[in-house]
Amino acid sequence: MESWSFLDTVESNFRPLVVIELAKGTKEETIKWFTERIVDKKANGGAQLLVKPLVTENGVENIYLVGASHLRLLLGAETVGLVKECSDNSMRAFTYSSRKTFKHFADDNHNFLTMAECQYIIKHELENLRAKNENMIPGYPQAKLYPGKSIVRRLLTSGILVQIFPLHDREELKKLSHSWYGRVKVGYQPLDDIRCYFGETIALYFGFLEYFTFALIPMAVIGIPYYMFAWEDYDKYVMFATFNLLWSTVILEVWKRICAILTYRWGTLLMKRQFEEPRPGFHGVLGINPVTGREEPVYSSIKRQLRIYLVSLPFVCLCLYFSLYVMMIYFDLEQWALDYHKENESNFSSLMLYVPSIIYAVVIEIMNRIYRYAAEFLTSWENHRLESSYQNHLILKVLVFNFLNCFSSLFYIAFVLFDMKLLRQSLATLLITSQILNQFAESLLPYWLQKRYNRKMKKGMCSKKSDMDLSLAEQVNMEKEMGTYLGTFDDYLELFLQFGYVSLFSCVYPLAAVFAVLNNITEIYSDALKMCRVYKRPFAEPTANIGVWQLAFETMSVISVVTNCILIGMSPEVDALFPDSKMDLVLTVALVEHLLLAIKFIMAFVIPDKPRDIQTKLAKLEFESLEALKQQQMKLAAESLKE
Amino acid sequence: MESWSFLDTVESNFRPLVVIELAKGTKEETIKWFTERIVDKKANGGAQLLVKPLVTENGVENIYLVGASHLRLLLGAETVGLVKECSDNSMRAFTYSSRKTFKHFADDNHNFLTMAECQYIIKHELENLRAKNENMIPGYPQAKLYPGKSIVRRLLTSGILVQIFPLHDREELKKLSHSWYGRVKVGYQPLDDIRCYFGETIALYFGFLEYFTFALIPMAVIGIPYYMFAWEDYDKYVMFATFNLLWSTVILEVWKRICAILTYRWGTLLMKRQFEEPRPGFHGVLGINPVTGREEPVYSSIKRQLRIYLVSLPFVCLCLYFSLYVMMIYFDLEQWALDYHKENESNFSSLMLYVPSIIYAVVIEIMNRIYRYAAEFLTSWENHRLESSYQNHLILKVLVFNFLNCFSSLFYIAFVLFDMKLLRQSLATLLITSQILNQFAESLLPYWLQKRYNRKMKKGMCSKKSDMDLSLAEQVNMEKEMGTYLGTFDDYLELFLQFGYVSLFSCVYPLAAVFAVLNNITEIYSDALKMCRVYKRPFAEPTANIGVWQLAFETMSVISVVTNCILIGMSPEVDALFPDSKMDLVLTVALVEHLLLAIKFIMAFVIPDKPRDIQTKLAKLEFESLEALKQQQMKLAAESLKE
Repeated sequence: MESWSFLDTVESNFRPLVVIELAKGTKEETIKWFTERIVDKKANGGAQLLVKPLVTENGVENIYLVGASHLRLLLGAETVGLVKECSDNSMRAFTYSSRKTFKHFADDNHNFLTMAECQYIIKHELENLRAKNENMIPGYPQAKLYPGKSIVRRLLTSGILVQIFPLHDREELKKLSHSWYGRVKVGYQPLDDIRCYFGETIALYFGFLEYFTFALIPMAVIGIPYYMFAWEDYDKYVMFATFNLLWSTVILEVWKRICAILTYRWGTLLMKRQFEEPRPGFHGVLGINPVTGREEPVYSSIKRQLRIYLVSLPFVCLCLYFSLYVMMIYFDLEQWALDYHKENESNFSSLMLYVPSIIYAVVIEIMNRIYRYAAEFLTSWENHRLESSYQNHLILKVLVFNFLNCFSSLFYIAFVLFDMKLLRQSLATLLITSQILNQFAESLLPYWLQKRYNRKMKKGMCSKKSDMDLSLAEQVNMEKEMGTYLGTFDDYLELFLQFGYVSLFSCVYPLAAVFAVLNNITEIYSDALKMCRVYKRPFAEPTANIGVWQLAFETMSVISVVTNCILIGMSPEVDALFPDSKMDLVLTVALVEHLLLAIKFIMAFVIPDKPRDIQTKLAKLEFESLEALKQQQMKLAAESLKE
Repeated sequence: MESWSFLDTVESNFRPLVVIELAKGTKEETIKWFTERIVDKKANGGAQLLVKPLVTENGVENIYLVGASHLRLLLGAETVGLVKECSDNSMRAFTYSSRKTFKHFADDNHNFLTMAECQYIIKHELENLRAKNENMIPGYPQAKLYPGKSIVRRLLTSGILVQIFPLHDREELKKLSHSWYGRVKVGYQPLDDIRCYFGETIALYFGFLEYFTFALIPMAVIGIPYYMFAWEDYDKYVMFATFNLLWSTVILEVWKRICAILTYRWGTLLMKRQFEEPRPGFHGVLGINPVTGREEPVYSSIKRQLRIYLVSLPFVCLCLYFSLYVMMIYFDLEQWALDYHKENESNFSSLMLYVPSIIYAVVIEIMNRIYRYAAEFLTSWENHRLESSYQNHLILKVLVFNFLNCFSSLFYIAFVLFDMKLLRQSLATLLITSQILNQFAESLLPYWLQKRYNRKMKKGMCSKKSDMDLSLAEQVNMEKEMGTYLGTFDDYLELFLQFGYVSLFSCVYPLAAVFAVLNNITEIYSDALKMCRVYKRPFAEPTANIGVWQLAFETMSVISVVTNCILIGMSPEVDALFPDSKMDLVLTVALVEHLLLAIKFIMAFVIPDKPRDIQTKLAKLEFESLEALKQQQMKLAAESLKE
């Protein structure tokens, strides 16, 4: 291993940022080729990064640490389009030539870029390491390459590369976890620190979770007296529901503004969208991409449409039907339990009353998880070229099913059985069961497993060192066995369903908001624990908003207007107001519903998506770039006209 | 007038493009200063254009012709961000340095830029002619200037500059009008020629008018048998209405795609939005614009909001109330006419039956026009900084009022009186009356007046030349007296109301679509006549879509789902289907309505706004610019790393 020593002398302060784990028994020539490509100069088509093998007590283990020189990282920051704060407090795209104008920049300040940014840059550079004239991975003739193909993606799909992950920074992590969840405190989360450590996507999720919790507090506060004083007046319920419906529009609109403030500060609001590469699983016959003109796999859009509409859509419909079928069984069970309770009244039988609901809640969870795998398989089989399009189709499939699965029984109780008492009871059971199940399955169970594993590992290493004193090799070995965080999808989904429980039937069960708030407070802690202790550190992912979830929450808020209006219309108190004509009642309810919907749309239209000062800052930036262009043209014009 | 001769020799082939008319008696020093500023070099803050006084038989008349050298126009094309077609059929922003790569470009080809484009460039350059250190217009101490203030706008507001307008090109106009409306033919309008002559905004209006007419044909064709065979079956009406509702969503979505195709071809889809200057009427105290950092009038946004919500909004509500009041009077009149007809049945009395409707239609037109002036006054008083924001507020005010004014009586008949026969009759009367009135007031009357005036003019000139043989001076004198085309607002509004007549009550009066199609065919001809013969040539205005009108049409299509569902629900045939329970009927109607709305929203979401090939072309362009940037950075990186 002579070649490495050379690099060592070049960069004496090599800082490991990213870990590459190759499969056991990977051929020497492949390793040599791959590492050389990583180290090779940009001009020769390399990534010009630094690589070091990890040497443990057991010798070399096919694990490599990747780092980069300070200069290389700065140039990479320009390539990925990082936006940083300037000395005059404006946000600008970082360029190496204008580096002196940025706040906190100094040639010897190696903290100008956060560790998460450095890791993101390295990931980007590794993924953009492309085949030149190789037509296969050396040593693996079956792993085909073609000019322009991302080498890392091919290595991943052919199983030679097991994983790439960024290293934790034990010290930073300790500081972060202390200020985040280490002490019981009232106050905001350290969002900026979270963003520095985990990147924008995760920080934005926690920002949304926190915002959403605060936004639910007014609903919860108003909801408590309904429970305490057992208010059953119709006008109070109508007031609560109306407040809820308008409030949910306001909070979703205001979130857009807060999101703009956060992402402006983080620079991602201004970040230019990079050209999207095909996702790793995408396959097809080699052809010419009409956009890039490069050779790459091409897959006919018509075939994909056919797969979507002829296979996926019917399958989803079938699953929805099956879910409804299970629901009917649940109602039979419920009826049976009720009959049983009536026949032999005892403690056991009254306990039995809750059994069907709990079974159903568990079955729903299981079905959700099975369906999730099917949806992932199908969406992957649809062979989407872009990761974003894959994600959108997956989210849509999962959302529809989860929505039906969670809410169909409630809809059935509300609008077919007309049983408000049962609705309230089922709502409470479903909400609380799913919250407990989720918290357990998502955070506490993995945490416990991880802890047990760590203990075993440490015993194996025959050392009783604390986490802070671990050697680099020990740290890497421990982290590579940790679970991989699969993104914010499930966390948002949980919030989405919770929002459904709170808003769809808010006029029947005002206490839902209270449970939601309580759950979210513990959710912040358990999610934070999960991020810091259970999972491998994820790569930072820049983002400017919560994407398709904004639309999902807004759709839910529109549906809840409809359900709440119907629920209020069905209440006996409202019924009593129209003693002569049911017709007038229905027409009034329909009118009110349309009015509320109209108000919602007008409110969404009138409230600007970005606060005025962010708008001004964006306009200023655009104006400056236009002016710069004009100046350049003026100079050219003056020169041309002189001639 | 010595200074002009110099210019004459410089540019021997001076082509007059734009006419500037100064007020009679404008001081010599002002004229001298203004023309010098126009001619002055760019480097000295001038516009570097060419100016010539118009010399007629009566001597100099304070009318000036503006032109520019070929090179100046090319550089201007770059400044305004014109997008032209390249030799490889892609559309790119024109730059002078890359001029050779553009299709049809040659240094001696003076037709590379269309005349409309040249005129747009000159207008842009004139409007961007800014005060340097002048603090008033020479000779007019009351007309204050400050550094950066647009000179032309100040001249216009202080009345020294009467008007600026582009000259017609008699030959081109003759060709265009021949292919447009000169012969009776079946086929499309020459949209590309219209665009070359009048610019994108007007061409897009005619494109929309034509598209909309074609889109209405299926509705008209399906509607005819309803009239001919007097179909009154409920299921046929339901089918027609359902078709109509889904069809209107489809046509509005497809229009977006067609619009993208048109504006991509014309280059405006890719055109970068320029920074918007304050509109001419905007006033305030001098302050610093936070975006540009320039000194300019500043007006508090809170004051504007107060004016909007405390004055404009109540005023509009008052007008709406007044309009409803007038409607009630109309119904009294109608009742009176009916009673009169019953008492003394005669030809006269049966004629009298139509009188209230006709009076009401005329009153509506008058009220619309009066309200329009009030709305313009109010919106101007709200003191919007940007022309676009002014336009949006004006359109909103006018739309709401016109909507209520035109449709409130129909809503009243349909949903309060429940009189379908009267509804059909009123709809027909209103539709046909307003169409005839509009065509007359908009095109035929001005055409006739213009023709009479021209004849007088020519007699005054004691010559019997045809239009083609007019001297430049005669042409300018004739055109400067022509009316000014005030934009596409009224034309779109007419289409919008027509769309309302067709879709809001489509299940009651299927024949409306037939009348709409017939009207639109003549509308194309009369609007074309109006553009070519009645009005001054308008400046071209680049645009990428029909703006707020798309939203207005979509809103109308949502409202029409509601109205049609109610109308069908109220029909006796549907009533008969639910003999036992009115409740079931109403619930079914509400369910169908919600389903239709959901389908509409899903359709709008699923149909992509741009055709796939346009999407690919746009992506390609974006990719290329990103690649270019990357190349540049790579070069820089390679250099930096070498050091």
